[in-house]
This record gives sequence, C-alpha cells and structure tokens, in this order.
Amino acid sequence: MGRWEPGAGGRLREAALNLYLERGFEQTMVADIAERAGVTARTFFRYFADKREVLFDAAAELEEKSLAALEAAPATASPLEAVAAALDAVAGFVERDRDLARTRYAVIMANADLRERELIKLAHMSAALADGLRRRGIGDAEASLAAETGSAVYRVAFRRWVDADDLDLRDAIDQSFAQLRTLTASD
Amino acid sequence: MGRWEPGAGGRLREAALNLYLERGFEQTMVADIAERAGVTARTFFRYFADKREVLFDAAAELEEKSLAALEAAPATASPLEAVAAALDAVAGFVERDRDLARTRYAVIMANADLRERELIKLAHMSAALADGLRRRGIGDAEASLAAETGSAVYRVAFRRWVDADDLDLRDAIDQSFAQLRTLTASD
Repeated sequence: MGRWEPGAGGRLREAALNLYLERGFEQTMVADIAERAGVTARTFFRYFADKREVLFDAAAELEEKSLAALEAAPATASPLEAVAAALDAVAGFVERDRDLARTRYAVIMANADLRERELIKLAHMSAALADGLRRRGIGDAEASLAAETGSAVYRVAFRRWVDADDLDLRDAIDQSFAQLRTLTASD
Repeated sequence: MGRWEPGAGGRLREAALNLYLERGFEQTMVADIAERAGVTARTFFRYFADKREVLFDAAAELEEKSLAALEAAPATASPLEAVAAALDAVAGFVERDRDLARTRYAVIMANADLRERELIKLAHMSAALADGLRRRGIGDAEASLAAETGSAVYRVAFRRWVDADDLDLRDAIDQSFAQLRTLTASD
C-alpha cells in the first residue's frame, strides 16, 4: 500500500481497508482491525464511531473543501466553471493518497449497502454545491443542473481514474468535461 | 385526488399515499391503509409486499419502458438523443397521473429513508440506460456520462414540474436539456 496518514488512526485505516478488501466488509470485525493495527478495540473507537465510518469519515471535510473552492471561484466564473473549481479541490484531496482512494473504492463497489451510502454522500455534496451556486445568484434549476451535471462528470472521471495507471484525476475530470461538451453539442 | 387505477389495488394506493401525506410514512400502518380503502390487510398484501412497495412498485416497469424507448431510438440518434427518448417514455408514464406522481413525491421528500430509496432507484435506472447505450456501441465513459447527465436533467425537470401548475413534464425536460446546452456552451 502507499502513503497513509501516520499514527494509530492511519494504521487503523490501513488495516481496516486491507481487511475489507481481503475478507469483505461484512466479514471483518472491529477486533480484527484493531489486532492487525496492533492496538485495542477501545483505541479503534477513539478514531471511528464504527467500521463503516472508516470509509466515510472524510465526507464532511471533502464537502467543506469543495464548497470553499466553489465560493472562492471568481464572480465572472460560469456555473460549470465554479463547479469545476469545486471538483478540482476534491481531486486534490483524493490524489493525496491514490492507494487509499482506490482501495476504498474497491471495498465500496463490493458491497451494496456501501454503494448506497456512497451514492447518498455524493448526492449530499451535489446538493451543497447547488446551494452554493444559488448563493452566487444562479437560478434554482440552473444551480441544481450544474451541480448534478458536475457530479456526473466527477463520478465518470473517478471510475476512469481508478481503472487507469497513469491518469491524473484532474486530467480525467477535464476530459469528462470535454466529453460533456461534445455530447451536448451533438444533441 | 385525480385519476387512479381502478379496483382494490388503486384504492389501496390512493389510501396509502393520502395517509402517508397526512400522518407521515412512519406513522401509517398497513391496517390503517386497508381500513381506509375498505379492504382487509390480507388484501393489501396481495397487491404490495409492504408499505414502502406502494411507492416503488412501478420502478421496474418504468425502467423497462425507458430502456425499450432507448433501444428503439434510430441508429443515427446521438447518445443524448437516445437518452432523451428514454426520458420521454418516463414522462409519458408519469404524466398518466399527475396527482399520484406529485403526492408520491411529497411523501418521499418528507422522509430521509424514502429519499435514499428513490435516489438508489434513479441510479439503477441510470446504470441500465448506460448499459443500453453501450449495447448501441457507445464508449464506456461516454455512455455513463450521457446516462447520468440525462438523469440529472430529468430530476431537475421533475422538480420544476412538481412545483408548477401548468407545465408539461415533457416540456420541462426539453427546457432542462436546453439549459444544459447553455451551461456547457458557456463553460
């Protein structure tokens, strides 16, 4: 595995993700995670509320960062440009540890409940970005459409990035935006 | 309320939706629904597996109809044109009973679990449409992007339609597609 955050939290996250991947999420117990990380179960619960939280505890921070980037976009930015700035912030966050992002994605894809949870988190972020666009004076429907389209662009780019060895997530996002323009131009 | 399908199934659906709206989904019991519809609980279970199924039993049929429309689109249709044909079939289905669609939507929006369920059903339909586009020879990422963008267009159009008194759902979808073109052209 690649670079993980240091300390017991980082070791626990690495142990958990590897176990989820090896045995499946359902089959992994908190005691197994703690044992592999060389700590007690009590220590696990100092870092994570439960074993699902290992996968989703970054969602709030990610949403905050993306919203801050959207708000910092120049006033002249079009709605999709502002959304692109938000996605760029997400990409910067995710790219800090590609191995973690990929392992996490593989674990989520292998479990229907986790896929649903991920879908809900992404929808939540999309709604937050739409609200951010409304605060920039964008009309209600236009704001939703820009945010949800951006979310679609991100999901498609992320899946391509996960499967590729030498693709930058930011480049994948740019390519998806270009593909979107081609799709709508030929419509 | 408007036109519902006839017979005990239709009466049960009408009773259920009105009770969910009046009392909340959680607070409504199957016995209450059966009583209002003038049938027994046993009859309820001949039509619906549980009280949530009243809201989601059309999803499979809707997905089937949209996929058939996508498959029937001319070979020369662009990916988004094929998706638009699928959405047109969805709109035709939904427009058959505007009151039912609106009541259903109000009930779903009032409950977090139901909102998540609806999100998952829409994601499922989007994935099915992406698969349908791939079978038409569209590239993997392009197919996902067209289907997910179409799904965003539909959701935004549907919300506008629900809030409007004199808007046709098909017109709302056309307007959202036009808005999408404007968004991507100014990007």
